Amino acid sequence: MILNKATTTVCHSPNQVVRLSKAVLIPLHQPFAVGLACTATLRHTATNQFPHQIVPQSRAFSTTNVTQLRDFFPAKETALIRKTPPAWPHHGWTEEEMLSVVPEHRKPETVGDWLAWKLVRLCRWATDIATGIRPEQQVDKRNPTTAVAAHKPLTEAQWLVRFIFLESIAGVPGMVAGMLRHLGSLRRLKRDNGWIETLLEESYNERMHLLTFMKMCEPGWFMKTMILGAQGVFFNALFVSYLISPKITHRFVGYLEEEAVHTYTRCIREIEQGDLPKWSDPEFKIPELAVTYWRMPEKKRTMRDLILYIRADEAVHRGVNHTLSNLNQKEDPNPFVSDYKSDADRTRPNPALKPTGFERSEVIG
Amino acid sequence: MILNKATTTVCHSPNQVVRLSKAVLIPLHQPFAVGLACTATLRHTATNQFPHQIVPQSRAFSTTNVTQLRDFFPAKETALIRKTPPAWPHHGWTEEEMLSVVPEHRKPETVGDWLAWKLVRLCRWATDIATGIRPEQQVDKRNPTTAVAAHKPLTEAQWLVRFIFLESIAGVPGMVAGMLRHLGSLRRLKRDNGWIETLLEESYNERMHLLTFMKMCEPGWFMKTMILGAQGVFFNALFVSYLISPKITHRFVGYLEEEAVHTYTRCIREIEQGDLPKWSDPEFKIPELAVTYWRMPEKKRTMRDLILYIRADEAVHRGVNHTLSNLNQKEDPNPFVSDYKSDADRTRPNPALKPTGFERSEVIG
Ligand SMILES: [Fe+2]
Ligand SMILES: [Fe+2]
Ligand SMILES: [Fe+2]
Ligand SMILES: [Fe+2]
Repeated sequence: MILNKATTTVCHSPNQVVRLSKAVLIPLHQPFAVGLACTATLRHTATNQFPHQIVPQSRAFSTTNVTQLRDFFPAKETALIRKTPPAWPHHGWTEEEMLSVVPEHRKPETVGDWLAWKLVRLCRWATDIATGIRPEQQVDKRNPTTAVAAHKPLTEAQWLVRFIFLESIAGVPGMVAGMLRHLGSLRRLKRDNGWIETLLEESYNERMHLLTFMKMCEPGWFMKTMILGAQGVFFNALFVSYLISPKITHRFVGYLEEEAVHTYTRCIREIEQGDLPKWSDPEFKIPELAVTYWRMPEKKRTMRDLILYIRADEAVHRGVNHTLSNLNQKEDPNPFVSDYKSDADRTRPNPALKPTGFERSEVIG
Repeated sequence: MILNKATTTVCHSPNQVVRLSKAVLIPLHQPFAVGLACTATLRHTATNQFPHQIVPQSRAFSTTNVTQLRDFFPAKETALIRKTPPAWPHHGWTEEEMLSVVPEHRKPETVGDWLAWKLVRLCRWATDIATGIRPEQQVDKRNPTTAVAAHKPLTEAQWLVRFIFLESIAGVPGMVAGMLRHLGSLRRLKRDNGWIETLLEESYNERMHLLTFMKMCEPGWFMKTMILGAQGVFFNALFVSYLISPKITHRFVGYLEEEAVHTYTRCIREIEQGDLPKWSDPEFKIPELAVTYWRMPEKKRTMRDLILYIRADEAVHRGVNHTLSNLNQKEDPNPFVSDYKSDADRTRPNPALKPTGFERSEVIG
């Protein structure tokens, strides 16, 4: 064990906040966890004057008066402006749609698929280290995207770190792909056939996931640095890889989204099993931003509900990207925004219903 | 004069097309015009079997049978898919709104403004050379963005080359700015406050302008190479400049849009004066793509009408970018998508009505 001076971090559920700054203990096998002090080792504590928030497990910590604390990204209001509505309003999800989502895996078929799959395995391995996952917290490694049972659950803090890190990365591919297709259309003087909007909307949706989790906990300087570095690497890697092979890149994102559905499914299971008591507490409030964005009904606003909404979004990204990878990148229209012929025996496909993506013949014909 | 072998190019109004390939004469003072053969020196000719299309003025040219020709980017239809609607549907414009647009110039106030203005002057100078503008075709150089009278009009071909080159560039800044703000929001873990959607929508709108003109004439290999090179330079320059100073970059785009409004205003004037007979011909048909996108009423589908629609769009970009440049880039919400307070004495501002942009106090308060 080593002793580290943690940065000042703010952790809060929307109504109750606490500021922490002091030395925290970081286990040696968690080298990346230094800046995650705020979240990596949280627990409930009797010294906490706000009973429902998340507080680090540390030798020493201090709370400051709640009035000193800020909502570090409030909805912007000015002398004249009341609010700014979302760019792509969310259509919401029905309970049935959300519960029908299952972790699934598309078997790699081509060399490109295999490459994409192995790259995602590598990303998962790195994330597990960064999140400080212990061996007993691992699921069956032979079925990494479908097995959800482990000997020991993750803590709320570990989940949050994982969510924030993953979501700050997840917003990149859609934007890179959308931008490169836009520039390609301009310089090749060709139509795009509807792909760009779905890709940009995906990246917006991922950014909303990130902002939602950010409302629950602000990472420390170390994690912020990690996010910065990861974005730099990830953006450039995707930029190059999308120029070389958009097909393999969409498959890579498809596999990444399998991970996302897996992560959220496991989290929902642990909430339901009572392993994450802070989030099961009836006093725990999810951020207002999430309630508004997903149009969550009044009686369905627990942390479990929130994760169900997010998981359904991830299932869409999974189906969309696996499908796009199956299409002719230059010629085929985007099936998810196109109008189908009245004499065709199908209508616009629903990507959430097809974990492994639609084959080209099913949606293009 | 030098003799050049022109590339195979296709020029057509939507219903009538002709393929051209042969030597064309390129004046020495138009070094960039080689690949613009298709459009740079067009004229009506008696040998043309389709009376309303645009044909190069060349020593020798050949027409090929119309059945050999292709609509080189048809709306995509597959066995199952009928069509793909636009990502951001256009709200359309009223006659009154379109006629109220005037060329205007915002006087540079800061050093940044001055820099942006001089850069746009440089771009205009380069475009004039590339388009082969003769001295007698120039407007009053002391008022380059407001004076619209010249001794000699441009030809339809010169206009088309100018439009296509400008629009292939115009789609870049909105996408770069939108992407960089998106990535910034992800890595800084901050809200964007509504800017991204307006920037992305602008870039989409510009791409629709380009595709509209592309339906009227396909450039040759030389112009295509120019467009490629220009995008490479412009994308990287904007990427860096937006990271350094989004404020100056928005001002730069504001000035670029002053140029766009100027270009289209002058073109409308020349159409109205009867200087561009091919476009005044009642048989001349504008592309179906444009009619659908702008929802153009049945009796208002001449080339003049089309340019009026496009000019109104440019007036929006001009007002938006000059306004955004006046705002606090990190904190202020985007006034063009925000909801105003019911007790404020104003509503969402209309950028088309404010050629020089709104000052910060007018829209943020
Ligand atoms: Fe996500
Ligand atoms: Fe996702
Ligand atoms: Fe334009
Ligand atoms: Fe424009």
